[in-house]
Amino acid sequence: MQTTIRKATPADIPAIYNLICELAIFEKEPNAVEITEEELYRYGFSDEAFYKCFVAEVQEKVVGIALFYFRFSTWKGKAVHLEDLIVTQSFRGKGIGQALYDEVLLYSQNEGVRRVQWEVLDWNQNAIDFYEKSGTTILKDWYLAQMHTKELAAYTKDKNSRLDESI
Amino acid sequence: MQTTIRKATPADIPAIYNLICELAIFEKEPNAVEITEEELYRYGFSDEAFYKCFVAEVQEKVVGIALFYFRFSTWKGKAVHLEDLIVTQSFRGKGIGQALYDEVLLYSQNEGVRRVQWEVLDWNQNAIDFYEKSGTTILKDWYLAQMHTKELAAYTKDKNSRLDESI
Repeated sequence: MQTTIRKATPADIPAIYNLICELAIFEKEPNAVEITEEELYRYGFSDEAFYKCFVAEVQEKVVGIALFYFRFSTWKGKAVHLEDLIVTQSFRGKGIGQALYDEVLLYSQNEGVRRVQWEVLDWNQNAIDFYEKSGTTILKDWYLAQMHTKELAAYTKDKNSRLDESI
Repeated sequence: MQTTIRKATPADIPAIYNLICELAIFEKEPNAVEITEEELYRYGFSDEAFYKCFVAEVQEKVVGIALFYFRFSTWKGKAVHLEDLIVTQSFRGKGIGQALYDEVLLYSQNEGVRRVQWEVLDWNQNAIDFYEKSGTTILKDWYLAQMHTKELAAYTKDKNSRLDESI
């Protein structure tokens, strides 16, 4: 089986979208995907682009992705965040995830960042083992905090910006 | 006491750096700060800038910051990440953190993002209570994964990019 790792192009967007949906099901959040293919284009390939994506291709079919972008750590400076590392179910266990992961780490090393980071579900022991074996530290004392559309709208509804006012 | 919330300028960098160091001590990681003031300038105010920062000023002294940037969620699209919300010890409990927090949420709402996110230490119950009261969800089933300079260099040392090769 020959696998090619390459940079994603706009033609890969439908395949990327499908893999994102597949991961959401695996992560037990099948309804969490609100993103559209138009947004995947806009933030990956337009003038506003800021994420990057490698794809793994077997027989002209995209079977895996590594999607990442820059973050800014006030401790470490510019950092790379690996948002998603996905290999479709039927192609797992063939080293494709490893190849995508390696490519992101090589990219990060070439960029000179002091940190590459991502998040992993606490029950995904296979992934945790894989990451730890490569030298990754798993931090267990942080929670993720998220405010979403509805709560954000409710919280800000009666508030106005007070930038440059004395309060 | 009059407080002004305004956008940070390059002149604020020394004060921002000091607050970052103060937070690192509070978070029990006093040696974790590797960033330099030059990097704070470069990634906040140069052509390469990608973080944004609001400061709270009392009597011409910066006493608090909210530092944030855009992330990309494959579920929610463009998102805002609140990297640091810091108020110096002697000015806490006066509503300054709240004012900075509100300003970031207003900014996020104006940008139309579907998610604002950040991280909080599991023992920082005051912060968790504050966030939850405003409509934030605290996710407790994710771990943070981080690979830093030394491990990244070791892992990638004997590897070469295989982009566009068949493997």
